[in-house]
Amino acid sequence: MEKFRKQMNFLIEINKLKSVFRQSLLPENGRNENDAEHSWHLCMYAVILSEYAPKNVDLLKCIKMLLIHDLVEIYAGDTYLYDEKGNEDKLKRETEAADKLYSILDEQGDALKALWYEFDECESEEAVFANALDRMQPLLLNYLTEGKLWRKNNINISDVIEKGKWETRKVDEKIKQYVYDLLNDAVDKGYLGGN
Amino acid sequence: MEKFRKQMNFLIEINKLKSVFRQSLLPENGRNENDAEHSWHLCMYAVILSEYAPKNVDLLKCIKMLLIHDLVEIYAGDTYLYDEKGNEDKLKRETEAADKLYSILDEQGDALKALWYEFDECESEEAVFANALDRMQPLLLNYLTEGKLWRKNNINISDVIEKGKWETRKVDEKIKQYVYDLLNDAVDKGYLGGN
Repeated sequence: MEKFRKQMNFLIEINKLKSVFRQSLLPENGRNENDAEHSWHLCMYAVILSEYAPKNVDLLKCIKMLLIHDLVEIYAGDTYLYDEKGNEDKLKRETEAADKLYSILDEQGDALKALWYEFDECESEEAVFANALDRMQPLLLNYLTEGKLWRKNNINISDVIEKGKWETRKVDEKIKQYVYDLLNDAVDKGYLGGN
Repeated sequence: MEKFRKQMNFLIEINKLKSVFRQSLLPENGRNENDAEHSWHLCMYAVILSEYAPKNVDLLKCIKMLLIHDLVEIYAGDTYLYDEKGNEDKLKRETEAADKLYSILDEQGDALKALWYEFDECESEEAVFANALDRMQPLLLNYLTEGKLWRKNNINISDVIEKGKWETRKVDEKIKQYVYDLLNDAVDKGYLGGN
């Protein structure tokens, strides 16, 4: 039972992800989204939009990545995309967090840590797709909350496109089209700066 | 783009799962857990405990089931396991909710609705495993909050075992052992009634 108990201790520890809050606000009530619900939503994006993933993508691997991609934030905290200072030491903080968290498990922890690195490096087809969804989902929440966060931080459409690497991101044309339509509509409605 | 827009409308609609609250309380702060975080956590249970699933279980199918298993509660609400009246018309309410929700999508919606029925009928190996995790996870939260909900509702260990069908549930011995140890320890600590 020792291995099983370690696995359960890990499942208990990651309950904390439900208390790591993101910048994104929910359209239903304006509260901040937490990392656990965000991760669930991204997995649903992966399931629903799987036909737009690169060919031969391993959907199970992609979903596992999305399930775990923010676990390091339990110790390292959420770093806002536009927080330049916070992003300077983000990788160091998150790597230490991964070492701490995955040491609860044995070899299974090493495999999950490797999967997180793969997501973070964004090179494999699964990681490319998972990262695109992770960049896309907050745009929807920003749009649905009338750009409250964009307006608060004086964000322009060019900032969103640059930070999200939408010009060069390898992603299906339908996804790209939807994102650009959404952003242009957000500018028209005054949710997002037009520069 | 019409199909893609329907898919995005579905992903926007299910954002509401983050505002469907369950009875379970979180150990970190005592607030009620919501269905989206619960679904994420169950998927993590499936990933971490996959070696205790029935042989040949399709883990991707199992995870998809867990991702969607509570979506009907967006319209039908959460029904507490011990709410006898609420459980009488639960299936009717949830079936109507499934019809409404999945009609946003085309054939993809039919496939997801069928997957939800399969989960609910609890006969396929994936459904058996997914349902066991769905019964197990709230026990952990109850234990970690010192049985606050059990005590409030005067729940006994025999109620938990009966409602959770733990005597007859087809599940790996390690899972069963862990659940019984947890429940007995909860009784010893006064979190749960001993009858």
